[in-house]
Parts: sequence; C-alpha cells; structure tokens
Amino acid sequence: MRIEDKLKEMGLTLPQAVVPPANVKVPFTWVRIRGNRAYLSGHGPTNPDGSVALIGKIGREYSVDEGYQAARSAALAMLSSLKRTLGDLDRVTAWLVVRGMINATPDFTQTTTVINGFSDLILELYGPEAGLHARSAIGVTTVPLGMPLVIEAEVEITP
Amino acid sequence: MRIEDKLKEMGLTLPQAVVPPANVKVPFTWVRIRGNRAYLSGHGPTNPDGSVALIGKIGREYSVDEGYQAARSAALAMLSSLKRTLGDLDRVTAWLVVRGMINATPDFTQTTTVINGFSDLILELYGPEAGLHARSAIGVTTVPLGMPLVIEAEVEITP
Amino acid sequence: MRIEDKLKEMGLTLPQAVVPPANVKVPFTWVRIRGNRAYLSGHGPTNPDGSVALIGKIGREYSVDEGYQAARSAALAMLSSLKRTLGDLDRVTAWLVVRGMINATPDFTQTTTVINGFSDLILELYGPEAGLHARSAIGVTTVPLGMPLVIEAEVEITP
Repeated sequence: MRIEDKLKEMGLTLPQAVVPPANVKVPFTWVRIRGNRAYLSGHGPTNPDGSVALIGKIGREYSVDEGYQAARSAALAMLSSLKRTLGDLDRVTAWLVVRGMINATPDFTQTTTVINGFSDLILELYGPEAGLHARSAIGVTTVPLGMPLVIEAEVEITP
Repeated sequence: MRIEDKLKEMGLTLPQAVVPPANVKVPFTWVRIRGNRAYLSGHGPTNPDGSVALIGKIGREYSVDEGYQAARSAALAMLSSLKRTLGDLDRVTAWLVVRGMINATPDFTQTTTVINGFSDLILELYGPEAGLHARSAIGVTTVPLGMPLVIEAEVEITP
Repeated sequence: MRIEDKLKEMGLTLPQAVVPPANVKVPFTWVRIRGNRAYLSGHGPTNPDGSVALIGKIGREYSVDEGYQAARSAALAMLSSLKRTLGDLDRVTAWLVVRGMINATPDFTQTTTVINGFSDLILELYGPEAGLHARSAIGVTTVPLGMPLVIEAEVEITP
C-alpha cells in the first residue's frame, strides 16, 4: 500500500465518503468501474466527515490560493471514493485525464493555477509516470450546490 | 428488446433523429462507435420530430422542474440516436459516464436536481447495474443554439 | 505520412510545441498515451512559436468567424502535440470525441459554428471515417489564461 504510506508521510487523512445535503438526490455513483477503467464523478472539496466544505465563487468569495487548496481537497475526496471502491489506491496504475470545472467570475483567468492543487497532489503521490495526466481547467457559471469547483477524472486500474 | 418494451410500458416514444436548424452545419456524429464503446455527442431536448424543443436559460426562462423535464427529454433524444446507430438499445451493456451542461444563470445551484431527469430515466430503463454511471452536472454560459442544456455520455456496448 | 502530406498540400504548417507563459506552471501533459488511446489536454490557438495567440471572449472581443479560425488554430496546436508524441500523425486511427469550450458572453449561441473550425479541419485531413467524432461545444465563463477557447479530445491510436 504505497500510496497510503505516502499520504501518512505527508500527514494527510482521507475524508469520509461524500455526504450530499439531505434534500439532494444522487442517482449516480462517485466511481464507475468497468474492466480496467474507473470513471470518477465530479468531486468538490469536502470536510473530514464528507460534507460539502465550501460554497462560493473563485474570484469573488475565494482567492486563487484558496482555490488551489479547494482543488487539493477535491483530490483527497476523490481518493477517498477510489479507496472505498477499489480497496487499495495502488490499484490505480495510470491517471489518464482530469477535468477541472471552477465556479468562477467571468474575468477570472487563473484556472490553470487553481486546478494545479489537484494535479500537484496526484503527481506527488503517484509519481511522474502513473500520476501523469491530460487535463482541462475551465471556469463555469455554476457547479453543484454552489461549490467553488468540481473535478472529474478517468483512470486506469488493475481489474 | 427489453429496453424498448420498458419504454412502451412507460408510455414513452423516442423522438425522430435530431434535426438541427437549416443554417447550422453539423460536421460531427451523434454517436461514435469504436470497439465496445459508444461516445455520445451533447444532446438537448427535442420535439417528437427531432427539432430543438426549448430555447432559454434555467433559472431565467425555465424552472428547476422544467429543467428536470428537459434533461429527461435529452435522454430520450440520446436513446433515439443510440437506437438508430445500434439497432437495439439492449446492446448498451453499461452506462459509464454522463456529463450534464446546463445553460444556467450565475447563481443557479441546483444543477444536480436538473440532470437527475436524465439519470433517473436511464436507471429506470437499464436498472441499477447497467444503468449506473459516474456523472458531473455543471452550469455553463451557453450551450448550442441557446438550448437549456446538453448532455453527453460514454457507454459500453456489445460490438 | 499521408496526414503530413495533406497538411503541406493545404499550405498548413504545425506550430511549435505549446509554450505557456513563464509564470504559469503546467503539471500535466498535453498528450497522455495509454494502450490504443491518446487523451488530449485542452488546447487553445497558438502562434507559430507555440505561444498563446489570442486573449478575449467570443461575442465581445472576437466574432463568430474569428472564433472559427481560433478553433482551427487549436486543431493545429493539438496536431502538433500529437506529432511530437506519436512521431507520425498517421498513427491516429480514429477520432472519438471532441469537447469545445468557448470563452463566451452569456447570450452567445453559435458555439456549434465556432467549434466547426476544429471539426472541419480534422475531417478534411483524416477523412469521413477516421476523422468522424462525437462532440460537444459549450460556452463557459472563462478558459485558461483568458484564451477565446480550448478544445480537448480522445483519439484511438496504433500502440
């Protein structure tokens, strides 16, 4: 379990499973497995108990640095979902593509720097070969619940 | 043909093939098949004759409930495209990932509930195993032609 | 090398590798290869030297026609990334899915026509079988660096 060892070394703890607000139905799954692929739903930043951590727009309620931290938190939420589904985070053999969608004001242009909070953590944990990924990072009008960002991904796994 | 039987039981009829406005060129395909994968282009709500059904923003011209119905209509348009390409909707063996993009006002936060109109129908038709999917649901500045939403997907098929 | 011959016939030259501004870190790759798939990061229009070519919104700084040309330029930037990674553009055996994200004003509805600048070039180069692709084309609040658009894709390759 190399990835979980690294998380411990870095002093990071995965949050609990994502807990949507009571009035929001979630008729989809956070991780869809098929063969050697896992498809990850859009994950936002969560509190340790899995509840939504932040509400607001980047460029208005949140700065670039706060956005970077929110993207890092979204990575931990996604890793938590992966761990719950796969049992072992080492079963992720290659990150393939990551899509960052930021709840941003119309003239916010630093989307790359914000989503780096996600990519930097994944590369630190998985290294430059398994962790490498294609990516896009856009600002959108709104994301679920008014969170500052959601990030989705597709990864290769050992079946 | 189990899926088409269920559609009939539910009193649902698939619309005709998508018909873009005469002045809009469409140099792409609604369904791209390769091996055991089908990639679905962004589909919006259509009328029974395949023409664009709705124009406007959710949170301005349309309510959450109307958005939910629009997402359900987009699912029927997508199923129509799949049926035309695959011949039999039972050839879809697993829904993998769904991306909902809503033409939304900047403070509209109920994107999850709107795209549930798509997910609920797919799960009702395909059941909790084949129908399950990862998902994201975002609000965007605009979608093609000014429709209230478009939804794209990737599914597994029997080749 | 059929594709490069066609580029020459059409008088088109691929730009240099994408060069982000000095102050922007890029902890991801422009092309992620795994098995018979290549995942392409969001590419925008570039100058011949690979630098960012345009900054501004379509519907405000740029017209529909300028957007079409920007999408065509983004296609050339993506082909340049593919050529650098694959060695030979003929190794792309099928375009699968293309996602265009336009930095657009809230009432801009001609996203289809803009992203046609990408699709038309791919179809002209690769032909109606290998070049065919599913697609979505949305307007978003902002794209990296304030570029007018970015386009991502997934293609099938010979490993």
